[in-house]
Parts: sequence; structure tokens; C-alpha cells
Amino acid sequence: MTSTLILLRHGESEWNAKNLFTGWVDVDLNDKGEAEAKRGGELLVEAGLLPDVVHTSLLKRAIRTAQIALMGAERHWVPTRRSWRLNERHYGALQGKDKAETLAEFGAEQFMVWRRSYDVPPPPIPRDDPYANFSDPRYASLPPDARPATECLKDVLLRALPYWYDAIVPDLQAGKVTLVAAHGNSLRAIVKHLDKIGDAEVVSLNIPTGIPLVYELDDDLQPTGPGRYLDPAAAAASIEAVKNQGKK
Amino acid sequence: MTSTLILLRHGESEWNAKNLFTGWVDVDLNDKGEAEAKRGGELLVEAGLLPDVVHTSLLKRAIRTAQIALMGAERHWVPTRRSWRLNERHYGALQGKDKAETLAEFGAEQFMVWRRSYDVPPPPIPRDDPYANFSDPRYASLPPDARPATECLKDVLLRALPYWYDAIVPDLQAGKVTLVAAHGNSLRAIVKHLDKIGDAEVVSLNIPTGIPLVYELDDDLQPTGPGRYLDPAAAAASIEAVKNQGKK
Repeated sequence: MTSTLILLRHGESEWNAKNLFTGWVDVDLNDKGEAEAKRGGELLVEAGLLPDVVHTSLLKRAIRTAQIALMGAERHWVPTRRSWRLNERHYGALQGKDKAETLAEFGAEQFMVWRRSYDVPPPPIPRDDPYANFSDPRYASLPPDARPATECLKDVLLRALPYWYDAIVPDLQAGKVTLVAAHGNSLRAIVKHLDKIGDAEVVSLNIPTGIPLVYELDDDLQPTGPGRYLDPAAAAASIEAVKNQGKK
Repeated sequence: MTSTLILLRHGESEWNAKNLFTGWVDVDLNDKGEAEAKRGGELLVEAGLLPDVVHTSLLKRAIRTAQIALMGAERHWVPTRRSWRLNERHYGALQGKDKAETLAEFGAEQFMVWRRSYDVPPPPIPRDDPYANFSDPRYASLPPDARPATECLKDVLLRALPYWYDAIVPDLQAGKVTLVAAHGNSLRAIVKHLDKIGDAEVVSLNIPTGIPLVYELDDDLQPTGPGRYLDPAAAAASIEAVKNQGKK
């Protein structure tokens, strides 16, 4: 028996449009992001892939993406679980900073290391930074000494995998069509794990926003083939656009 | 130690405005209902009553009310549980029928018995009725022989109480501020239970929409006083308006 996993990256947020590093800052979707989420729900309906359960991060942009997509697919009533382990990568001291200004201040090489390297995190966020918010009640289960102050992709993978095994895998094993609505980096971590992508190769992995990415998994939770986007043309165009950004 | 329970009845739906019996038909909020939910969230913030957990029915109008109120209170990330046991009363064969036409067809006495009596349900909905929808996957845990085809308030209380004891009480006992976003009759059932209202007296109990109703409960889950509405003036006006409807 195979089971079906659907990964959905949230759409554009208010800070994407402003070109700020976001990370754990709880920024809402903008109008374009809402439209992407709605389209995500339509793609699920067109594919006949109706989630039986949904997992989200604790961040508004992923939660609302799930709510909008599920409402559109008439699946608003499915069991819902959330965890900080599906959060976006914590961007450390860069959170709330302008991307262009950061590039100018630290130079292209350092900038790319922070954005793209597998295991080099940005500097930790100071405890008194306005975007640190260490008293946020949603992380009460993470006392300050256990709470990330910055993360690289490797850190994200290490904190996401326990949730993958403890919460998502049991739903898949129960045969449920399982939707995970999360972020660029928490989803890259899951895809790296599923597709056994090397630490060097994962650097070039990009997951487009708002387009459901579907895996069929066998009894050992191994993919029976490559993940497939429900709108392959839009996904290819989005991936190509990110590549060309790098070339500029 | 006391614990805090917040009851929130969903606001106006598309069928309230059309004057149709709704019951288990999954009708969305209209604009007024969305505004009521938003106001409900604002009242929570003003009172400093921030839910740690939310329970909803499986119906869109209660789910969206919870989503909108919690988003406004920055509590979108709290654990969420849903159950058909918090659904609105199943209105049987009356679901989808126009209230004025039903009144004209069956007469005022029969109409009031169906609407208001504690233990007389309307006729059951036929299995082939367009609003019966016995194959709805959200009720897959309820095979057709166990699924309500009509309910009186007593039936609602009997099916809601197991969820109260099994799911809501443990959250209250853990000291969590617990929000229950549901419907006129499932909330009347809970209030009848908490306030020990008699079968005859409950007939005149009305719970206004969109105004959080707060109970403090002692260690034995008994109210330490009467439930209080977070906007008492609006609640009184709404209850008065319903009373005067009856007098016309």
C-alpha cells in the first residue's frame, strides 16, 4: 500500500514584498499570498487529492495558507496539528533586516553563505532584539536555552525530523492523505530527507510557493518516484525564475 | 484553582439571512458573520482572555468564526480540536426549508414545538434528501445507523456531553484557557449542563452570536458564578430582540 504526502509552501507574505528577512517573525500573507493559497486548494480539488489531516508550523503565513487551501477544497474540518518544528528557518540576527542592505553591508560572498550554505547559520539574534521575542507564549515548551537563536538548513532538518517521525509518519502509515503546510526551508529539509539529497546538492533545491508537491510513499516511507507538482508548468517556471535571479 | 471556559457562538451565516433551517448543512458565514467573529476576537483581547486551546464543531461557520477570532487575538497557533459532537442540532427534514413556509404549512404550534421543545425532534431527514448527505466523509466515524437524522435539544446534550468530559474537561483541568466555538444549540446544551437549567426552563435560554461568554470553573468543574458576556450591553440587547421576536 502506498500513502500520499502533500507538501505546500506558503505564498507571498507582507515581508517578501518588502524584501526583508523573515524567519520566525510572524508576518501575514499579502493578497498575492492569499491568492496562491486559494489556487493551491483548487489544484488539490482538480487532482482529487483531498487531505485527511493537516500539519502546519506555528506561523501565520503557513496556518492561513492551510486554512485557505482546505476551505477551498471543502476540507476545513480535517484534524489539524501544529508544531514549531515545521517553522521556517530561524534567520538569527538577520531577521527584520533589509536583504539589499545586508548584501551591501556584508558583501555577496558572506550573504550567499548565510542564505544558501547547508551548515553555516547567520549570527544569533540578540536576546533584546525587537524581533527576538523570546517571551512569545507559543514557544513556552521551549525554554530560552533550548530555543533557536539562529539556524542553518542542517539545524532545521535536525529539529524537523523528530516531528516527521513522531507526528507525520503515523498519519501516513494510517493511510491518510497528509498535507504539510509550511515554509521554504522546513519543506526543503523534508524533501532532502525523502529524496536523499546530498548536503552540497540541496543548496540548489528550490520549492515553489503555493503549488502542492505530491509524493507517494511505500510501506517503508520511501518515495515510489520523484515528487510531482500539481501544476508542473508553473513550478518549472518558478524554479527557472529563481535560478535566473542568481545569474543577475 | 479556577479554570476559564469561553463559549463563542458563530455569527450570521448565508442561510440565516435567507431564513432557512440550517442544522448540519455546511453553510458559510456571510459578511456580517465575519464581522461578528472579528469583534469576538477583539473582545477577547480587550478582556486579556487569550485562549490556550480551541475546540470547534465540524461545520464551516464555527470553524471560520474560531479562525477569525483567534487570528485577531494572535492565537492562530493554539492547538485545535474538532468534533461532530459540537455540531449544531440536526434539524431533520426541516433542513434547507424556508422558515416562513414551514410555519405556514404546519402551523404555529407545531412550528414552535420543533423549534423550542426540549425533547421533540422534527421528522427525520429522508436518506435521499439533497441535504441529508449521508456519505459526507467528515462523518465517516459515524456509520449511517449511528448518525443523527434529526435531533431535539436533549439529543444534542446527550451527544455533546461525552466530548465535554473526554476532550474539553481535560484541557480545563490542565489550567488552559479553553475556547469552544460552536452553535446555538450545542452551546445551549453546555450551558444547560453547567448552570443546571431545568428541561422546561432551557426553552427560553438564548445565547447571542459573536459575544464571548466566559465561565470560571472550580476544581469540580462547577461554575463559580454566572457566565458573563464580554459585551454585556450587546448581549442583553440581542437577548431582548429575540424575546420580542416571539411576541410579534
